[in-house]
Amino acid sequence: MIDYHLLEALHAVISEGGFERAAKTLFITQSAVSRRIHHLESSMGEPVIIRNKPPMPTPFGQRLLNHYQQVRQLEIALALPNLDEQTKPSPPLLVKLATNADSLATWLPEALAVSREKTAQQYQFDIVVDDQSVALKRMKSGEVMACVCSSKTPVNGGKSLALGAMRYHIVASPRFVDTYRYSNPSELAKLPCLVFDENDKLQHQFLADLGAQSPTIVHYCPSTEGFLQAALAGLGFGLLPALQLANTIESGVLVDLMPGHWVDVALYWHYWQTESPPLMILREHVLAVASKRLESL
Amino acid sequence: MIDYHLLEALHAVISEGGFERAAKTLFITQSAVSRRIHHLESSMGEPVIIRNKPPMPTPFGQRLLNHYQQVRQLEIALALPNLDEQTKPSPPLLVKLATNADSLATWLPEALAVSREKTAQQYQFDIVVDDQSVALKRMKSGEVMACVCSSKTPVNGGKSLALGAMRYHIVASPRFVDTYRYSNPSELAKLPCLVFDENDKLQHQFLADLGAQSPTIVHYCPSTEGFLQAALAGLGFGLLPALQLANTIESGVLVDLMPGHWVDVALYWHYWQTESPPLMILREHVLAVASKRLESL
Repeated sequence: MIDYHLLEALHAVISEGGFERAAKTLFITQSAVSRRIHHLESSMGEPVIIRNKPPMPTPFGQRLLNHYQQVRQLEIALALPNLDEQTKPSPPLLVKLATNADSLATWLPEALAVSREKTAQQYQFDIVVDDQSVALKRMKSGEVMACVCSSKTPVNGGKSLALGAMRYHIVASPRFVDTYRYSNPSELAKLPCLVFDENDKLQHQFLADLGAQSPTIVHYCPSTEGFLQAALAGLGFGLLPALQLANTIESGVLVDLMPGHWVDVALYWHYWQTESPPLMILREHVLAVASKRLESL
Repeated sequence: MIDYHLLEALHAVISEGGFERAAKTLFITQSAVSRRIHHLESSMGEPVIIRNKPPMPTPFGQRLLNHYQQVRQLEIALALPNLDEQTKPSPPLLVKLATNADSLATWLPEALAVSREKTAQQYQFDIVVDDQSVALKRMKSGEVMACVCSSKTPVNGGKSLALGAMRYHIVASPRFVDTYRYSNPSELAKLPCLVFDENDKLQHQFLADLGAQSPTIVHYCPSTEGFLQAALAGLGFGLLPALQLANTIESGVLVDLMPGHWVDVALYWHYWQTESPPLMILREHVLAVASKRLESL
């Protein structure tokens, strides 16, 4: 079994940002901290820390830290069988989470705000925005505890649950529609098109499904809100989440270029089988909010 | 002087995504394309292409491409002395641009939408979001043609112009204010705080200026819109651009924690001294929109 005192030292060095401060938190000497880290590395046969200022975990070290967090949460759950507001609150649980940008800009923050009635556990979120392939790599390496992405297949040791679908409509500003006349999807494909970044193939896919070519003039705009602002400013057409469009279509500041046509992108919550109780409560809250805000699959 | 046929070959290989397709565009053989690239590299004494699939420019190659784009635009401007709607439109000018996230999510898209009355030149934007230090590195290496950031000092060969200031207010949801009572900045610093990412020191600075410690419970939320949604959901307090707050304070969905207190972040437009006429028109439009939307310095 792992010597958890060594993991505790690793955690302290990373969270405190140095060996000296870690020593203070652990009430041991700095050389004792160094010895524990060395011991951990020699017993694991792999480096766990990159000795920078501040020290950073190696991918393997990050995996150990993730494991350490989960074990600590299991311990906290043991000591606090009834999650009562009266009991002393446990320290915030650091939840590292990967997500696609559009979820973070729309429904996800509400889904992460678990009310205090549900749990005495405070969460502290470290959110990273990534395209799907990178997000799943972070999940595989144990760098994140959960991940929102459009791939259903769970990673080894993980599970996935359907959250619902984000619905995208193809829109442009009234000025754009007036300036650039087009009569079919192939002509539309030749007009300036908004694309999130080079990993975003949504517009390409949408046009291909209509039998059109790939867009020729592409603006890369890597911001969900910037994408909306770019559409409003008439820079190009693009697919925007219904959740973000709000009443822009009804009020006439944007035009739905193909009413009745949309793209649904299914989203999944990836998590570890060894899920601690606070993470289970978080997951249930995320699923409840997602089922309200997203389209059912 | 540089042999521009060689640069043209470099441009074709990168924009077409391969030697074979570049050969087709240039109406020469594939081995002729290879020879031109080799010739370019031996005359420059440095590699210009990373031979991947698709081939990628080296940082030095990217710098040459940027220069090539500028020269081409100068040539286009020569051939079209009067920017008349009647004349044949020139090909879109690819403008690679680095910016801070908050600008892209608020005022920048409108600033990039130069109307057709101002110029016959179509722009095609490749926007990258970076924190200031990375953005200026991209500017230095010639990878981007312009950059919006809060540093005033121009890079070598570049200039900078003040755009105005983004004003940030410290806000939280009414529920957050009800749940977490605090009576001074030091107590506020102990409550959950929203921070964009590890490069974002705005909240830290704001609290320090009030004589408080750094925030202890930090949610990293790397999305401007997600940051607003997280504040609305009551996840934490944080500094939000006035441009993004719209009427959230007036309507009571967010609370200004310190009315009359704000942070102004000055922003600058960085550009190259060898600016082509279409980029000058763009710059003038950006400055005009910025002066309307941002606070004056």
